[in-house]
Amino acid sequence: MSNFILHNYFRSSTSFRVRVALNLKGIDYDYQSYHLRKGEQRSDAMLKLNAQGLVPVLELPDSTVLSQSMAIMEWLDETYPKAPLLPDTIADRARVRSLAQMIACEIHPLNNLRVLATLKSKFGADDEAVADWFKTWVAATFEPLENRLASETYTGDFCHGDTPGIADICLSAQVINNARFAVDMAPYPTIAAIHKRCMVLEAFDKAKPAFQPDAE
Amino acid sequence: MSNFILHNYFRSSTSFRVRVALNLKGIDYDYQSYHLRKGEQRSDAMLKLNAQGLVPVLELPDSTVLSQSMAIMEWLDETYPKAPLLPDTIADRARVRSLAQMIACEIHPLNNLRVLATLKSKFGADDEAVADWFKTWVAATFEPLENRLASETYTGDFCHGDTPGIADICLSAQVINNARFAVDMAPYPTIAAIHKRCMVLEAFDKAKPAFQPDAE
Repeated sequence: MSNFILHNYFRSSTSFRVRVALNLKGIDYDYQSYHLRKGEQRSDAMLKLNAQGLVPVLELPDSTVLSQSMAIMEWLDETYPKAPLLPDTIADRARVRSLAQMIACEIHPLNNLRVLATLKSKFGADDEAVADWFKTWVAATFEPLENRLASETYTGDFCHGDTPGIADICLSAQVINNARFAVDMAPYPTIAAIHKRCMVLEAFDKAKPAFQPDAE
Repeated sequence: MSNFILHNYFRSSTSFRVRVALNLKGIDYDYQSYHLRKGEQRSDAMLKLNAQGLVPVLELPDSTVLSQSMAIMEWLDETYPKAPLLPDTIADRARVRSLAQMIACEIHPLNNLRVLATLKSKFGADDEAVADWFKTWVAATFEPLENRLASETYTGDFCHGDTPGIADICLSAQVINNARFAVDMAPYPTIAAIHKRCMVLEAFDKAKPAFQPDAE
C-alpha cells in the first residue's frame, strides 16, 4: 500500500491543521512541499490535483484527492474514529464547529498570503498597513473567542473539555500565524493557555512550521 | 413549545444559507431582523446571544444558541436526518464539504459588509475599487469551482447528484450576492445552471432576500 501524501507548505496554517489532525490520528504520510512565495501551488502538477491551486491537499493511498482543510479534518474524523476530533453529542459538535469556523471563516481567509499580496498590489499597502489589517481581523474574532472560551462552562483544558479537537487545531494554527505580525496575546489569556497546552502535545509540536522539511 | 428563532438579516448571504436549510428540513421559525448597515448586530441584545455580533444566530426552542452558518447546517442535518444536506458516504461528504468550504472560506469572508467597509476606511477604496476586489475573489474561486463541477462525474443536477445540499446552498447564496456587483456569470455555465435549478425549489425561493420581512 502506498502512503498518504500531504501536499502542503511548512508555513501555511491550513497545512498545519491537517498535519496535526494526521498526527493525532496516528497516520504516517509523505510530505510534498509547494513553495507558496514562489507560486509552486500554481504549478501544473498541483493544478491537476486541485483546480484551486491551494494547499493543503491530502492524497489518499487509493489516489483520491481531498481539499479544503476543514473538509479533510471531518473526513479523517469520520474515517478514523479513534482520537476523535469532534465530541460525542450533536450539541457539543455544533459548539466545536462554531468555534473552529470563527477562525476558519473570519480570520484566516482575510490574512493569508494571497490576500495580503493583493492589498499591496491593489491599494499600495505598505508593511505597516498590512500588519494593521492582519491584526484588525485577529482582534475582531479573538475578542469574542476569548469571551466565549472564558465564560462557557464547556471549556476545559482545551476548547471543549479536556481533549484537543478541531477547534484547538484551528486556534493553535492561528496563534502560530499571529507571531509573524507580533500580535500581543495579553488580551487573550484563555486562548494563550489552550495554545500552550496544545503545543506540548507531540501531535502539535511535530506539526510546527519550523520542524517541517521545507522550513527555511 | 416555543419556536426556533432565526436572528438574521435579509441581505446577509450566510443568513440565506440557514433560511434555506431550515426550509429544506421543513422547520418553521420566527424571523428576527438585525439591520447590518445600522449596526444592529452590535446591539446588546445580539451580543448577549452571540459575542461575535454576527448574524445568523439560530436560537433553539430550549434557548440554546447556535452560531456560524456552516456549523448550524451541520447541526440541522445531524438533528433532522430527513431531506439530508450531506450525502451518505464519507467520501461523498468530503467532496460536498470541500465544495461548500471553497465558497464559505475563500469568497464570502473577503466580500462581506465589514470587510468592504474596512477597505474604504483603511485604504480609501472607492466604489470601483471595492467592486474590483469583490469580483477578484469571486473569480479566484468560481473558476476552479466551475472546473470541478463541470469535470467531476459526481456532479448531477446539483453539486453532488440530483438533490440539493450544503454545497448548493453556499453556491446559491454566493450567486445571489454576486448580483450586487453585477458579476458576469457567462464564464460559469455549470454554476449558473445549478443555481437556476436551486431557485425554482420552494425552499430556496422562500429564502430569497427580497421575500424577507425586513427587505427594503
